[in-house]
Amino acid sequence: MFQSSEIYGGLSGAWDYGPLGVELKQNIKNCWWDFMVRSRENVVGMDGAILMAPEVWVASGHVSGFHDPLVDCRDTKKRYRYDQLYVYKHSSRDDLPCFAFTESDPAPALSKIKKLAKGTSPEDYEIIALEKAEGLDLARVIGPDTNDPGTLTEPRQFNLMFKTQLGAVEGEAAEIYLRPETAQAIFVNFKNVQQTTRQRVPFGIAQIGKAFRNEIVTKSFIFRSREFEQMEMQFFIPPDEDEERYEEWREIRMNYYTDVLGISKEKLDWQPHPPDKLAHYAKAAADIAFEFPMGWQEIEGIHNRGDFDLSQHAKHSGKDMSYRDPVTNETFMPKVIETSAGVDRSVLMALCAAFSEVEEVGEDHKRETRSLLQFHPNIAPISVAVFPLSKKDELTGPSLKLANELRAAGLRTEFDVTGSIGKRYRRQDEVGTPFCVTFDFDSLEDQAVTIRHRDTMEQERVALDRVGEVLARNIREW
Amino acid sequence: MFQSSEIYGGLSGAWDYGPLGVELKQNIKNCWWDFMVRSRENVVGMDGAILMAPEVWVASGHVSGFHDPLVDCRDTKKRYRYDQLYVYKHSSRDDLPCFAFTESDPAPALSKIKKLAKGTSPEDYEIIALEKAEGLDLARVIGPDTNDPGTLTEPRQFNLMFKTQLGAVEGEAAEIYLRPETAQAIFVNFKNVQQTTRQRVPFGIAQIGKAFRNEIVTKSFIFRSREFEQMEMQFFIPPDEDEERYEEWREIRMNYYTDVLGISKEKLDWQPHPPDKLAHYAKAAADIAFEFPMGWQEIEGIHNRGDFDLSQHAKHSGKDMSYRDPVTNETFMPKVIETSAGVDRSVLMALCAAFSEVEEVGEDHKRETRSLLQFHPNIAPISVAVFPLSKKDELTGPSLKLANELRAAGLRTEFDVTGSIGKRYRRQDEVGTPFCVTFDFDSLEDQAVTIRHRDTMEQERVALDRVGEVLARNIREW
Repeated sequence: MFQSSEIYGGLSGAWDYGPLGVELKQNIKNCWWDFMVRSRENVVGMDGAILMAPEVWVASGHVSGFHDPLVDCRDTKKRYRYDQLYVYKHSSRDDLPCFAFTESDPAPALSKIKKLAKGTSPEDYEIIALEKAEGLDLARVIGPDTNDPGTLTEPRQFNLMFKTQLGAVEGEAAEIYLRPETAQAIFVNFKNVQQTTRQRVPFGIAQIGKAFRNEIVTKSFIFRSREFEQMEMQFFIPPDEDEERYEEWREIRMNYYTDVLGISKEKLDWQPHPPDKLAHYAKAAADIAFEFPMGWQEIEGIHNRGDFDLSQHAKHSGKDMSYRDPVTNETFMPKVIETSAGVDRSVLMALCAAFSEVEEVGEDHKRETRSLLQFHPNIAPISVAVFPLSKKDELTGPSLKLANELRAAGLRTEFDVTGSIGKRYRRQDEVGTPFCVTFDFDSLEDQAVTIRHRDTMEQERVALDRVGEVLARNIREW
Repeated sequence: MFQSSEIYGGLSGAWDYGPLGVELKQNIKNCWWDFMVRSRENVVGMDGAILMAPEVWVASGHVSGFHDPLVDCRDTKKRYRYDQLYVYKHSSRDDLPCFAFTESDPAPALSKIKKLAKGTSPEDYEIIALEKAEGLDLARVIGPDTNDPGTLTEPRQFNLMFKTQLGAVEGEAAEIYLRPETAQAIFVNFKNVQQTTRQRVPFGIAQIGKAFRNEIVTKSFIFRSREFEQMEMQFFIPPDEDEERYEEWREIRMNYYTDVLGISKEKLDWQPHPPDKLAHYAKAAADIAFEFPMGWQEIEGIHNRGDFDLSQHAKHSGKDMSYRDPVTNETFMPKVIETSAGVDRSVLMALCAAFSEVEEVGEDHKRETRSLLQFHPNIAPISVAVFPLSKKDELTGPSLKLANELRAAGLRTEFDVTGSIGKRYRRQDEVGTPFCVTFDFDSLEDQAVTIRHRDTMEQERVALDRVGEVLARNIREW
C-alpha cells in the first residue's frame, strides 16, 4: 500500500493498493460476499452510488449531527480535534504560556517547554484535556505545530461529510455529499429491492462500497482514513424479533472471522457499547475487536437499529416504507439488524494476524530469520507459485504449462524463474503464498513435482496430473 | 438498476445496481480482471484512491483543459451545454424572439413558436447551432425551459471535475478533486509498482475503479453518468515499440468482447479518432463501438499516449519517472498504450446484446412471446436455478442439498419453489439464467434430474452426481 499521490508528498487519509494489496483486498471482499450473499437464500446484494440526494443525509441525521469539534491554527493552517488536544499548564504561574499537544505524541510539547519557557521545569506543569481546562484563555496556548501563543481558534463544530456541487443545477440545491456510510443506500432502496426480488421479511440486503469521512485527524495507516470501504448488511425483520436476531447475527459474524478468514480466537473479542454511548439510531450495539499491535480496535459493528432509518425516510420522503407480507397480510415497519465491517481494517487485520518470524538455519548454515505471512489460502494474494528449477527451456516449457493449468482451474498462480529455489521460497513466504511447486530435472522422468508447504516447510512429491487436485484438497481442508 | 435516491425524486447521473445488476456488473469486472491481470505474467493490478492530490490534475492537464462550455438559465437555474444548444430563428424578422432547444428534443421549441410567436409559421424559421449563430443577441433567445427571452447567460468554461475540501488543512491548499479518470493513479504509482514487483518494461498495470465527471447533461441511462466505473490498463513500453504494441492491444481487446463476453462480431466495430480530434495526450486512438438501440457508441478506447503522462509527472513532481532496465542498463521514459473500458457501458451492452424475444406456443396452447436475456454463462447473474417440482419435503430436501453442492462448486445458484415449473422457467429466462435443474418425483427413484437449457429449451436427464460436471462442461464449451 502506498499513500495516495505519493510522488506529490502524499494525500493524507487516502491509500493506494499495489499489486499484492489489491488481490488481498479483493479476496477479502469475495469471501464476505460469498459468505453473506451467495450462500444465503435470504440475503441479496446491491451496489449503490456514492453520490446521493442531500435529503438522504437530512433524514439520516448526518447533516445535523455528524460533527467533530475542530480547532484551527491561524499560523500553520493545520487543524486539530478539540477533544483530542491536551495542554501542559504551569501549576502556579499564569504568566507563562501553555503548551498544547495531540494525544498521540507529547514529546514536541516537552521539547518546547525546554526551549520556550526557560527557567521552568517540565515537572512543574500539569497535563489537562483542553476541553476540560475551564477558564483557560486560548491566547496563552501555543499550538502543537507553532511557537507562538494565541494562534488556535475557538472550537467549532465541523461536519464530517465531504461536500461537492452537482453540475445540473445552479445554486444551493446542487450541494451534495459523498456518502459517509453505505447503509443509507440500502434503506432508501428497501422497497425497490424487496419488490423486485419477491423476498419476504425477514431478509437482508448486503453491499460493499466506498464511503468518505472528512476526519480532522487520520491515523494508524489504513485503519482510519478519509476514503475507506465498507461491507454492510441490513437484515429487515418483524418488530418483535430484534433481540433474537441481534444475538443470531453476532454469532454468525464472529464465526466468520475464525472460520472463513482463519483469524485466531484469542485475537478477537467483543466490545459492547454501553447504553449511554449508543449512536442516535441504535437500540443495542457491539463491536468485534481485533488485537492490533496498537491495541484492541473495532473491525466490525453489529447494531440493532430498530426502525429508525425506514421511519425517518418515510417521514422525509413522504413514501410508504412499510412492508406488507403477501401471505399473512400483516403490515409493519421492519426493524433492522446491521452488520458493518471495514474492508481496509480487515486487510490490516489480515496482515497483522498473518505476520510471523521464525528462526531457522539458512542455506549457508547460519541461523537466520524467516519472515512470513501465514494467510489463510482463501485470502492469500497468490495461491500457488510455480518454479522451474532452472531457466532451461526443457524445464520452463512444461512448468509454464502447469502454471497455466492451475490458473485455469481458478488458482491465483505466479510463475517465477529468477534466483535460487531457496530465494524464491523466501519471496513467496514473505507475501504469504501457501504453496510452491518446483519442477526439476527429475520431473522430466517421473512426471512429478515437489509441493512445498509454507507454514511447515514440508515437501511432498506429487504426480503432475494430480497437482491441482492436491492443492484444492489442501485449501478445502485448511 | 434504480436511480440514486429514487424515493427523493432521484439524483441525476448516478445509479444504484439491484441484486441482479450487482452480480452482472461484478461478473463483468471479474472477467476483465481474470483476462487482463490474473492470466498474464506481464500485467499486474492495483487499486488507487478516488481522492488524489490536486497537483496530479495540474500535471495531467485536467485543471486547465477539462472543460465544457456552460450556459445557465437565470429563470429556471437549469444548465445547458452551449455546444449542444440550437435555435429556431425567423429567417427575415429580427424583432421576433429565437427559440433555443437541446439537441435531443426540438418539440418544445416548436410548440412554443406556435404559442408565443403567433402569426408566424415554423416553416419561416431556420435552425442553427447557437455557437455558430454569430451576432445573435442572447437577449432575444428564449431558453429551452422558460417562456421569457433573455434568461440565458453568456457561455463560460465549466470544469468537469467535482471539487471538495479536505479536512486536514484550512484554505486553498485543501481544495481537492474526485478523480475524473483512474489512469493517473497508475501513472503516479509507476515506479512504486515497477520496483516492488520486479517487472521489466514492457509490462502493464491494470485497475478497476470509480471516476466522476460533473457532466452538464447526462443521458442514455447508465451510458453517460456523473459517477461511473472504469477498467483501465496502462502498458509501459520501450519508446520504439508504440506502434506495434498499439496494434497488438487493439486486437487483444476486440477479441475479448467476442470470446470472453460472447458479444456477436456484427455488433462491434472500430471508430478511429481522426488526427485532428485526438485528445491532447494521444498520438493515436481508436474506440471499440457497440451497436446500442440508440446507435453506435463507444465502449472502450485504445490510446497511444506516448510518454505524455510520465513526462508531465516527472516535471511537476520533480521525481525521476524514467525506467532503467536491470539487464540492459538502458534508461528511458517508457511510452504507454492505454486500454480504457467502461464498466457501466459494458453492463448496458451486455443487457442490450442479450435481450431477445421469441414467439412460441405457451402452456395453454396460445402463442406467446418469451422474453429472455441470452447472457454468456461467464456473466449471467445466476448460473443455475434449482427447482423441486413441488413444495413437498421429500423433494425440497434433496433439491436444496443439490443447490448447496452446486454453490460450493462455485456456481451462482438460485433455489426457487414458487409457482409452476413453466412460470419458474420464464422467470429464469427473463434474468438470463443459462441452466435450470428440476428435481421431480422420478428423481427419488432414478437419482437423476432434468437440466433445461435456456436458449434451446432442450432438456436432458442427468444423474444427480454428475450435474456439477455437466454444467461445468457446458460453461467451458459455450
